Amino acid sequence: MQGSTQGQGSDLGSRGQAIADFRRVRSWSEHLCAPLTVEDHVVQTVVETSPPKWHLAHVSWFFETFLLVHYLPGYKVFHPRFDYLFNSYYEQLDSGFWPRPQRGLLARPTVAEIYDYRRHVDAAMERLVGTCGERDWGVVEPRLRIGLNHEQQHQELLIADIKHNFAFNPLRPAYREDLPHAESVEPEPLVFIAFDGGLGEIGNAGSGFAYDNERPRHRTWVEPFRLGDRLVTNREMLRFIEDNGYGHAGFWLSDGWQIVGREGWVAPRYWECIEGEWFEMTLGGLRPLNPGAPVTHVSYYEADAYATWAGRRLPTEAEWEYAASGLAIMGNFVDSDRFHPAPAVAGQGPRQLFGDVWEWTGSAYLPYPGYRAMEGALGEYNGKFMCNQMVLRGGSCATPADHMRPSYRNFFYPRERWQFMGFRLAEDGI
Amino acid sequence: MQGSTQGQGSDLGSRGQAIADFRRVRSWSEHLCAPLTVEDHVVQTVVETSPPKWHLAHVSWFFETFLLVHYLPGYKVFHPRFDYLFNSYYEQLDSGFWPRPQRGLLARPTVAEIYDYRRHVDAAMERLVGTCGERDWGVVEPRLRIGLNHEQQHQELLIADIKHNFAFNPLRPAYREDLPHAESVEPEPLVFIAFDGGLGEIGNAGSGFAYDNERPRHRTWVEPFRLGDRLVTNREMLRFIEDNGYGHAGFWLSDGWQIVGREGWVAPRYWECIEGEWFEMTLGGLRPLNPGAPVTHVSYYEADAYATWAGRRLPTEAEWEYAASGLAIMGNFVDSDRFHPAPAVAGQGPRQLFGDVWEWTGSAYLPYPGYRAMEGALGEYNGKFMCNQMVLRGGSCATPADHMRPSYRNFFYPRERWQFMGFRLAEDGI
Amino acid sequence: MQGSTQGQGSDLGSRGQAIADFRRVRSWSEHLCAPLTVEDHVVQTVVETSPPKWHLAHVSWFFETFLLVHYLPGYKVFHPRFDYLFNSYYEQLDSGFWPRPQRGLLARPTVAEIYDYRRHVDAAMERLVGTCGERDWGVVEPRLRIGLNHEQQHQELLIADIKHNFAFNPLRPAYREDLPHAESVEPEPLVFIAFDGGLGEIGNAGSGFAYDNERPRHRTWVEPFRLGDRLVTNREMLRFIEDNGYGHAGFWLSDGWQIVGREGWVAPRYWECIEGEWFEMTLGGLRPLNPGAPVTHVSYYEADAYATWAGRRLPTEAEWEYAASGLAIMGNFVDSDRFHPAPAVAGQGPRQLFGDVWEWTGSAYLPYPGYRAMEGALGEYNGKFMCNQMVLRGGSCATPADHMRPSYRNFFYPRERWQFMGFRLAEDGI
Amino acid sequence: MQGSTQGQGSDLGSRGQAIADFRRVRSWSEHLCAPLTVEDHVVQTVVETSPPKWHLAHVSWFFETFLLVHYLPGYKVFHPRFDYLFNSYYEQLDSGFWPRPQRGLLARPTVAEIYDYRRHVDAAMERLVGTCGERDWGVVEPRLRIGLNHEQQHQELLIADIKHNFAFNPLRPAYREDLPHAESVEPEPLVFIAFDGGLGEIGNAGSGFAYDNERPRHRTWVEPFRLGDRLVTNREMLRFIEDNGYGHAGFWLSDGWQIVGREGWVAPRYWECIEGEWFEMTLGGLRPLNPGAPVTHVSYYEADAYATWAGRRLPTEAEWEYAASGLAIMGNFVDSDRFHPAPAVAGQGPRQLFGDVWEWTGSAYLPYPGYRAMEGALGEYNGKFMCNQMVLRGGSCATPADHMRPSYRNFFYPRERWQFMGFRLAEDGI
Repeated sequence: MQGSTQGQGSDLGSRGQAIADFRRVRSWSEHLCAPLTVEDHVVQTVVETSPPKWHLAHVSWFFETFLLVHYLPGYKVFHPRFDYLFNSYYEQLDSGFWPRPQRGLLARPTVAEIYDYRRHVDAAMERLVGTCGERDWGVVEPRLRIGLNHEQQHQELLIADIKHNFAFNPLRPAYREDLPHAESVEPEPLVFIAFDGGLGEIGNAGSGFAYDNERPRHRTWVEPFRLGDRLVTNREMLRFIEDNGYGHAGFWLSDGWQIVGREGWVAPRYWECIEGEWFEMTLGGLRPLNPGAPVTHVSYYEADAYATWAGRRLPTEAEWEYAASGLAIMGNFVDSDRFHPAPAVAGQGPRQLFGDVWEWTGSAYLPYPGYRAMEGALGEYNGKFMCNQMVLRGGSCATPADHMRPSYRNFFYPRERWQFMGFRLAEDGI
Repeated sequence: MQGSTQGQGSDLGSRGQAIADFRRVRSWSEHLCAPLTVEDHVVQTVVETSPPKWHLAHVSWFFETFLLVHYLPGYKVFHPRFDYLFNSYYEQLDSGFWPRPQRGLLARPTVAEIYDYRRHVDAAMERLVGTCGERDWGVVEPRLRIGLNHEQQHQELLIADIKHNFAFNPLRPAYREDLPHAESVEPEPLVFIAFDGGLGEIGNAGSGFAYDNERPRHRTWVEPFRLGDRLVTNREMLRFIEDNGYGHAGFWLSDGWQIVGREGWVAPRYWECIEGEWFEMTLGGLRPLNPGAPVTHVSYYEADAYATWAGRRLPTEAEWEYAASGLAIMGNFVDSDRFHPAPAVAGQGPRQLFGDVWEWTGSAYLPYPGYRAMEGALGEYNGKFMCNQMVLRGGSCATPADHMRPSYRNFFYPRERWQFMGFRLAEDGI
Repeated sequence: MQGSTQGQGSDLGSRGQAIADFRRVRSWSEHLCAPLTVEDHVVQTVVETSPPKWHLAHVSWFFETFLLVHYLPGYKVFHPRFDYLFNSYYEQLDSGFWPRPQRGLLARPTVAEIYDYRRHVDAAMERLVGTCGERDWGVVEPRLRIGLNHEQQHQELLIADIKHNFAFNPLRPAYREDLPHAESVEPEPLVFIAFDGGLGEIGNAGSGFAYDNERPRHRTWVEPFRLGDRLVTNREMLRFIEDNGYGHAGFWLSDGWQIVGREGWVAPRYWECIEGEWFEMTLGGLRPLNPGAPVTHVSYYEADAYATWAGRRLPTEAEWEYAASGLAIMGNFVDSDRFHPAPAVAGQGPRQLFGDVWEWTGSAYLPYPGYRAMEGALGEYNGKFMCNQMVLRGGSCATPADHMRPSYRNFFYPRERWQFMGFRLAEDGI
Repeated sequence: MQGSTQGQGSDLGSRGQAIADFRRVRSWSEHLCAPLTVEDHVVQTVVETSPPKWHLAHVSWFFETFLLVHYLPGYKVFHPRFDYLFNSYYEQLDSGFWPRPQRGLLARPTVAEIYDYRRHVDAAMERLVGTCGERDWGVVEPRLRIGLNHEQQHQELLIADIKHNFAFNPLRPAYREDLPHAESVEPEPLVFIAFDGGLGEIGNAGSGFAYDNERPRHRTWVEPFRLGDRLVTNREMLRFIEDNGYGHAGFWLSDGWQIVGREGWVAPRYWECIEGEWFEMTLGGLRPLNPGAPVTHVSYYEADAYATWAGRRLPTEAEWEYAASGLAIMGNFVDSDRFHPAPAVAGQGPRQLFGDVWEWTGSAYLPYPGYRAMEGALGEYNGKFMCNQMVLRGGSCATPADHMRPSYRNFFYPRERWQFMGFRLAEDGI
């Protein structure tokens, strides 16, 4: 994705590439929904998630709202109330929005109508790219890039939300029966790799696409630290559980301990203990827990409690970015068609920094020094969430590979577990 | 329905009739769902309602659970978890049940699978009726009658739940575009008809089908009373509204006044004031309020407040049954294919006692003297709800005509409004 | 109390008696609060209760609001905001009222200020009685009687609320250390006494004081029934518990079973099992459960579940009143200075109908035929609560003896347990 | 405070100073409660606060639990359940603790009993200091210092909680009628003072008392910045309000905007608009808003929204500490006996950094690099709260002057407003 937006020799080439990217990203959303029944598109099993059909419509609404109605002359919106139904949270738009907790209560529009909506928007977008003037293209192209990255983010949400819906159902249906079982190998013991730290820079300075929250690139001081060479595994999490980790307050942040008690947490989300054996719900159905795979679907609280128990800590986002800078962006992304994290391969040096699971860092999601939000309603994309959330890094097995960057900052509330979230340990260096 | 179970000359005739009734009732459920999209079958827009597909499955589960697994040798349940998913509330069954507020969170089983389930149960039921021994038939037949009446009750719930789902949707879709608009005539002024009262009897003593809660027939003393000759209309309810009826505490029961404030009630459910004009959501979509039609979708609190404002009261269930006894069971039932209450026809004497809307009475739903619940889990059908609810009488435009009896006791919590509920006034006689 | 308002030979005598009664009732409230510390007057440990100091003020506000400001020329209210702070729930007064769940959040006015308020009202009331004209006296006297009965009701609430506050406190303090321990005798087995029933009358027709909800006296038909000769005891309730009564859904009303699960009920309120022995919180502190004493602090749901388990039922209020009519109003009232129910004495015929515990009946609290509420805001006293509550009869060990009548209808929500509530069994006669 | 613990020439001097400090701090708590009635000690008007009597007991429990039971031979606890009642949140102690939201539901122990408890602890503490051995003193002295600082923190909470209780009461009583009215002068326009930033150090490195969360002192990089020379005033906040600041989503963090809607915020806590004039509840009662005084009782969300509206931002805690380092710790602390923030004095350079109001920073409350919590249950003091809260700096008019340090990190949830919280603006440098 990044490469595709850089160094276009000509405007024509840029437009051709844009259409190719547009088609590719748009069709991937539909590819992800292909295994679903109509019924699967409708439900919302917890307030954080959205029905698949809502995602399919919302990402189209995004193009309609931020591009088509402004830049395509004569564009007719597909339906006069879709601005209300499919606005997610942009308070500065006049439409208002349907309450998020009630997205699963709407039988209509039907899935078929939403696919019609997609076709309507697709055709109009291609018209826009093909016909807009030079000057408009200077605005349209970056917004289209935001729109495609936005749709990629929703593809990842779609996968996590589908998983939640299927795991919630007592029949434990599989999203795809054909997904491969992960290897049962277990990685070698964790090794901590030393980094010098010092005064360095983090943040995005490239000319390619990046969200406003990754900017500006700026200096930061990092003390020497040591970073785990791989993610923490299910086997390691089991030891924490067997050592009564979920039962001993001393390991936990106060807010985490509250939720452990209130929600009755005794293991990561989607783990089930059936007659003494641990199983884990996956997109391929309920499967025996793979001890060597990275633990996933844990909250920040669980990650932090584990680290405390282990006498370590989570890395900061600056430490993580230091370690990840310069590494190739390769890993178990959605492109590998696994839809589940996999054990670390043998080897030396940091592994699994990209893909597999989003890594909780010990950094609160706050603006970088000199941060400026985008203008207008699009400024709500990232900036207004810079409170009460923690930064996660590196992408997951549900992330498209071309969506990832070392400077990418994902963010969730510390209580959330339904995304593919895991963690890596760190400790202070000498 | 009643007629069909009485005076069967022979067992063979009784079985033939049973199969005919079974097919008729079962197919009506599917007829009601025919206008729905797949998506419409899935959602549950408030906790009191159930998704249409849940109703379709639950009524089949009822036959499976209370008949097939006990009386049909070699019967195989369709799916081992359906006993858990489609048990409504029978605590004494071992299966337990999926929590009611989460019925709309289940994408699976799909609608198609549920229709397969229905076919499976239908075939087995016909086999059972055709093959069970004489002695078993003595148990099977009454249970089958309960099962059919049960399915008819769910047909009525189905209609009310569909209406709620459609009205909840901001697109205000119509369930059936072809439903007729009601006549706009307004009935003549309300007349109160005098009844002598005295020591009489209420309750069911017939040999036909009746629920346990209608029995035993028993003596009761009723003082002289006068009963409104028709239902209260939308026009009359509008006068209450215009007189600040929803804003004056003095008209309201304490619990009703709480809910008026908490929920912000200003009119019956489904009324909408758009630019000064009142509209009403119907199964034919949003339509201008018909002033002459009976007011519907009001709670007991609203019915009682209106009566207080009007200087009258609601009738007791004994008064209602006195007035209704001996009258022909005719009225605007679901068979009329209107799916909405209609204005009273001109005439004398009590009208609209049957059909149109369920009539709130001033009687709490309590056991009759000498009441005995059915044995076993079926005893939970009615008896355990005899607290905190009020009795409604007469059936509605969503009730099958052959489901109704003068002794029929329906019951809902006084706060509930989503059924076709209305009321009639009464006052003390001389 | 009743006697005192009847047959006054002269207005002068009537006024003298009124002042004597006024002084007696008013001083009893203060007598009840004498054992409390200042701190004890402030807290409200559950929303149904009120802080003792609030009761002391509210009953004074009642006299001020419904008598002094209207009938005593030149009367100055003690404080301009007390109408807002100490109005309980009279919606038709202009003052509005402080939210009930927050009564325990008010440190001010202080207890001393509230006693000043009482003195202020007392003096004004005596002035009013002594000076008002003949015509006014015709209104003042019945309102004063309501005010005194009202204060007596609050005396009973005061005792129950104090008990709740003390039982809630982990130090389990005693309200009065000097209260006698009840005898440990156990009564003889329950005997059911047969009543013929028939067409009779219930309700109050006397010229003495009665609430509007006891009127009018009216005919009612009662089938033959048999009534338990004494209250159900702790020993009997223990058998229900030991038979898994709280764990078997089949005994319970649906709404009751919900609350059993949600609140984790396993025994009556105030019972505590400490190392295998049952104790019970009393106003004399935590004491070993007395098996022969009547069970108390049970909800309607528990009473009904017990009756179902025992193959019996609760009596209706009509049955209870039939049985109680003509009996002397004697029993373990607050005047006995026990503050706890006591075992039935040996003997024949119905015992414990009056005093000990309020007896849950199987009758919903509804208006009698021909009921008329008092005019104006005082009409809110009883009428607006005629929904969702059940009738209790007979008074308790916290009721003043002269407050009781056979026609007296008390009412509480079926979930409530903090009053001295118990029950007696009944069954159908032949 | 700091001075007093440093450079003690002899152990004897150290003990003498400790006793003097102990007496001074302990008596100040009682001084603060002197204006209260008994009733004022009991109530808890919102879950974040505690009843004054609970504070008085809890700070004594702290000495008892962490010192007396371990180090004073033969010490008898005052009451066996006080460990349960007055433990605040130390999960690692065996006692457990009474639920925080219910602290205001305990009438007992009485205020007098809690003063007896204080006397009991005071005497034992003096015995401990006077008699413990040399080796123990090495542990006892630092714990005693923690205990005194702990009590000082509760003194500040006490003031804020009392204010909340009094402001909640519709009578709006004054805590102290004699408190001076602030001057009505308004400060000169805000000036931004430039700081170079660079690689510097923050955190506590002194030998005096500091909490673990202020340590270790560590390097941090700060970009050039400019800091407001005084706090934002009520007049300035009024302009935000008049510009519809509370009504425009674009200024607000998402979580803040939610709470604005849910709680109906339209102004800082304790502001009241009466007939068009703004008033403010103070510890001296309800008073006209002083436009020149610093705005206080605002949440982080309001501070951040104001800054966004003003085109500025909040300073980070590192920026604040850079600016504050080396300045004299002087300001409007509780020692000035004002109990309310006061307008900035005329002058140049940064003013009001210390005292008046705690200043919200844009920094999340997280561990410093290399942070180590104290051992054992005392480690719960600070560390377990390092999530979801924001750092505040500088102390307030409710803080004892000798409690303050430039490195002091206070922390609250961004929604909280009941402490004396305000803010200062910052912006990026060149």
